[in-house]
Amino acid sequence: MKALAIVLVSGGLDSCVTAAVASKDYELAFLHVNYGQRTEARELRAFKEIADFYGVSKRFIASIDYLKKIGGSSLIDKDLKIPDYREKIEGIPSTYVPFRNTHLIAIAVSWAEVICAKKIFIGAMEEDSSGYPDCREVYFRAYNQLIDLGTRPETRIEIETPIIHLKKWEVVKLGAELGAPLHLTWSCYRSEDIACGRCESCILRLKAFRKAGIKDPIAYQP
Amino acid sequence: MKALAIVLVSGGLDSCVTAAVASKDYELAFLHVNYGQRTEARELRAFKEIADFYGVSKRFIASIDYLKKIGGSSLIDKDLKIPDYREKIEGIPSTYVPFRNTHLIAIAVSWAEVICAKKIFIGAMEEDSSGYPDCREVYFRAYNQLIDLGTRPETRIEIETPIIHLKKWEVVKLGAELGAPLHLTWSCYRSEDIACGRCESCILRLKAFRKAGIKDPIAYQP
Repeated sequence: MKALAIVLVSGGLDSCVTAAVASKDYELAFLHVNYGQRTEARELRAFKEIADFYGVSKRFIASIDYLKKIGGSSLIDKDLKIPDYREKIEGIPSTYVPFRNTHLIAIAVSWAEVICAKKIFIGAMEEDSSGYPDCREVYFRAYNQLIDLGTRPETRIEIETPIIHLKKWEVVKLGAELGAPLHLTWSCYRSEDIACGRCESCILRLKAFRKAGIKDPIAYQP
Repeated sequence: MKALAIVLVSGGLDSCVTAAVASKDYELAFLHVNYGQRTEARELRAFKEIADFYGVSKRFIASIDYLKKIGGSSLIDKDLKIPDYREKIEGIPSTYVPFRNTHLIAIAVSWAEVICAKKIFIGAMEEDSSGYPDCREVYFRAYNQLIDLGTRPETRIEIETPIIHLKKWEVVKLGAELGAPLHLTWSCYRSEDIACGRCESCILRLKAFRKAGIKDPIAYQP
């Protein structure tokens, strides 16, 4: 029998490919977190469709609307503008949600301790993640230490970051090789029906497919 | 001008005295988290009354009902019984909420990064906390490391645990010395009007007041 692993599935490209990697060795449980992001409903649809694709019955959807109330990011705060893509961004972009991954993983750990999952898979990428501090390997290493110290002595839960050192185009390639349902994923920061093709997230996605030599299967606004 | 510190205020004894300590050196901001605990409404009232006592205007109340949905603790899961107090408990008691403090502190860190608070005060006690793994100093040290790595490079936020090595009776004594509003605090795990006096939390509180030689100012069921 395969051990159980929780995969954090936003509905985007990276988490979808991470799920594809995890599915090789683990029984899957999918966790989705709404944190008041603008395209929440569309991401949730992508989550459900990817879960159906992999036949995942253990699903947990958590809402943490307090992140929106705290604000501080253009992803969740409508007073801040989602920037158009620029080749060079000074410092950490406005889409950074303060300490976000810590919340998402904490939910996964609590759930893992109850359902006896051994691994938590997250599709973070260090080099290709706009400089978010909580997407770095050193951060996840520190988090594993915290899990070890903050849970029951007999609990063994570890974060796995299989795509941490990949570039986004390599993630696209890996996803295609593993037969991941890339056509079901959603990346756009702005729109919920047809992807805008102009926000940072869309541009990075389109560049990645181009470099991987694969046609992006989703539609974009003209 | 004093620097800003966030205090995690549950409404109980420990967090009230922690706020009293923090108030000596910092401007206070109070954070309260509802996580589906049985006595949520009563704790929130205590939170508000303690905030009024200290004249705290920066208040944030976050609800994380997903912890209740995850379950696994008698504090939030009505299928599990809140145990009567016993002198000896084998292992970690059923009131342990998996990884709870990680969630509470993560909310504090996100809020701190937005309001520019420098410290997060939490009233955890290592020896007198029923063996919860996330109440140990080694856990908080690991969390400070995670904050350092998971926030913007220029952000400096640190967890402070001023009562970590005190016994509960010493906390009562310290609170009395600092003029903390102990009469406004709530500890009972079971009841919301008059404290039961028989659950683990009530017994530990009553023992602490007795040992400190101070009369507990709240009422108990006969």
